[in-house]
Amino acid sequence: MAALGERKLITAISRWLGEASPRAPFGIGDDCAVLPAVKGHSLLTVDPVIYGEHFDDHVSPQAAGEKLFKRNLSDIAAMGGRPRAAVVALAFDSRLKTRWLAAFYRGLAAVSRRYQVPIVGGDIARLRGGIVASLTLLGQASGKRVVTRQGARIGDAIYVTGQLGGSLRGRHLRFTPRLDEGAWLARQQGVRAMMDISDGLAKDLPALAPANSLPALNVNTLPISAAARQTAKQTGRTALDHALSDGEDYELVFTLAAGTPPSAFERRWRQTFPKVRLTQIGHFVRRDRAQAQGCIDLGLYRGFEHLIDAVPGRHPTSAEGQP
Amino acid sequence: MAALGERKLITAISRWLGEASPRAPFGIGDDCAVLPAVKGHSLLTVDPVIYGEHFDDHVSPQAAGEKLFKRNLSDIAAMGGRPRAAVVALAFDSRLKTRWLAAFYRGLAAVSRRYQVPIVGGDIARLRGGIVASLTLLGQASGKRVVTRQGARIGDAIYVTGQLGGSLRGRHLRFTPRLDEGAWLARQQGVRAMMDISDGLAKDLPALAPANSLPALNVNTLPISAAARQTAKQTGRTALDHALSDGEDYELVFTLAAGTPPSAFERRWRQTFPKVRLTQIGHFVRRDRAQAQGCIDLGLYRGFEHLIDAVPGRHPTSAEGQP
Repeated sequence: MAALGERKLITAISRWLGEASPRAPFGIGDDCAVLPAVKGHSLLTVDPVIYGEHFDDHVSPQAAGEKLFKRNLSDIAAMGGRPRAAVVALAFDSRLKTRWLAAFYRGLAAVSRRYQVPIVGGDIARLRGGIVASLTLLGQASGKRVVTRQGARIGDAIYVTGQLGGSLRGRHLRFTPRLDEGAWLARQQGVRAMMDISDGLAKDLPALAPANSLPALNVNTLPISAAARQTAKQTGRTALDHALSDGEDYELVFTLAAGTPPSAFERRWRQTFPKVRLTQIGHFVRRDRAQAQGCIDLGLYRGFEHLIDAVPGRHPTSAEGQP
Repeated sequence: MAALGERKLITAISRWLGEASPRAPFGIGDDCAVLPAVKGHSLLTVDPVIYGEHFDDHVSPQAAGEKLFKRNLSDIAAMGGRPRAAVVALAFDSRLKTRWLAAFYRGLAAVSRRYQVPIVGGDIARLRGGIVASLTLLGQASGKRVVTRQGARIGDAIYVTGQLGGSLRGRHLRFTPRLDEGAWLARQQGVRAMMDISDGLAKDLPALAPANSLPALNVNTLPISAAARQTAKQTGRTALDHALSDGEDYELVFTLAAGTPPSAFERRWRQTFPKVRLTQIGHFVRRDRAQAQGCIDLGLYRGFEHLIDAVPGRHPTSAEGQP
């Protein structure tokens, strides 16, 4: 890499990104990227991928780039937003192969084209002995409403998209951020609170819980993925455990107001997204009635804990929505 | 750090940031930060600070945090914009002291308060053996116009704010991003192109040059800082060399249309910014007339080259406006 030099590297990056990167000042090449005015609320999120944490030598650089972009798209989806533009800060060792960088940026470019989100700027810097890539995504509300993690009430039904668990078997790279689904859900009045599942349902779901409530989950309806069952055979843990705690599902979990008829809601979903499973997995109950309702204790399924040495079988991701 | 755990760390970070960090969804705690609608163009930029590259054990964590924020503010200033909100992605080794993190975030918070730019979100993740912090800054046009690097014409006068060189003696940490100055300059019709000086004037200025032109610099008027002169005594190089190539000046360089009377322009500047030096350092001439005009060859003063091992006396920064 060192041999290439900075100026040539930047030219090369522009070539690798191709049409994913507009010309300055609307893209790479000025002090900031300039973005045309839009109406409505803006959304801003940042997530990294780090060599040794979120990917390693078993993951192709193209897949690492795609994962970086899609992790952030999932955060925009989780609020019912639309992605607008991305910037990428990459720090890497000067011994890194040009071939690696080319494939990484081509991965970013592929996602950029697929979701029509330009990469408008970024930074390259040197990091001895490591690779850290951070992507910041600017988005906007897709309609009048942004759906946050706050707003659920006791009695609300809890839904998840797709299937959970075992993402290390490939889904942590191959997932599809639920952008269309998130935008559609934001337009449904009964949808009160939403987030994406990145650290495992057990760890993430409490963030949606109203005060003095607990989730009463029907473990028999939980959409446990085939990958979770396969993983369970290897680890000796239960498939349920993997579905609740593996993390990196990048599915949506949201609540539907108790007054909204579930059958009509689910029918509209099936008409709109016939290929994406939607499952009511339980509802929020008063904390003092939780035991009578047979709630499972999610504290037993703690999901991935950041910043401590990885527990075997648990999956490293990074802390959402936090500095 | 490991002992603290993720949830407690996030709570601690919110405490360290204090009023610099609004509540979710307008700040930390949701999948994305939500920002109210604004009129006009948006600006987006990202710059990192990396342990061993942009700071080391001689720099306090508070100063490192301040530098990270101010580097990005300088990019917004360079387009005449106003900063609006920041997100910070931090990757660090789990052996890092809580005390270090607290001071780093307090440094970010101090700049946030000083410039009234909230820190609305971010991410923490693990990086073995390193510290990489990236800050992404969202800004907006301060008036009708955003000033880019494009637009200068042959005959335009070249101006710089402040003084150049020797920033390693302290200014690379203590600089003031030229936000008010940049916004004022964007309102002056005669100002055609602008950028901040981060890699050294010799390396940065060519980005403002119109096609088939070279900058004819009057080296006698170049505002060489006392720090550049002091550094020259130690390195045996000339103070001019340091002023042209040290980098991390974080001053503005801009061009004024040939038809704009310089004296009236400079008087308005002095009335508005009596404490900030403004110097006309030359003008752009046709390339084929450069030799007759006594142009110095900026190629001899190459500024900091990224991604190669640091040349003694040159200063590490990272590549601007680039992925």
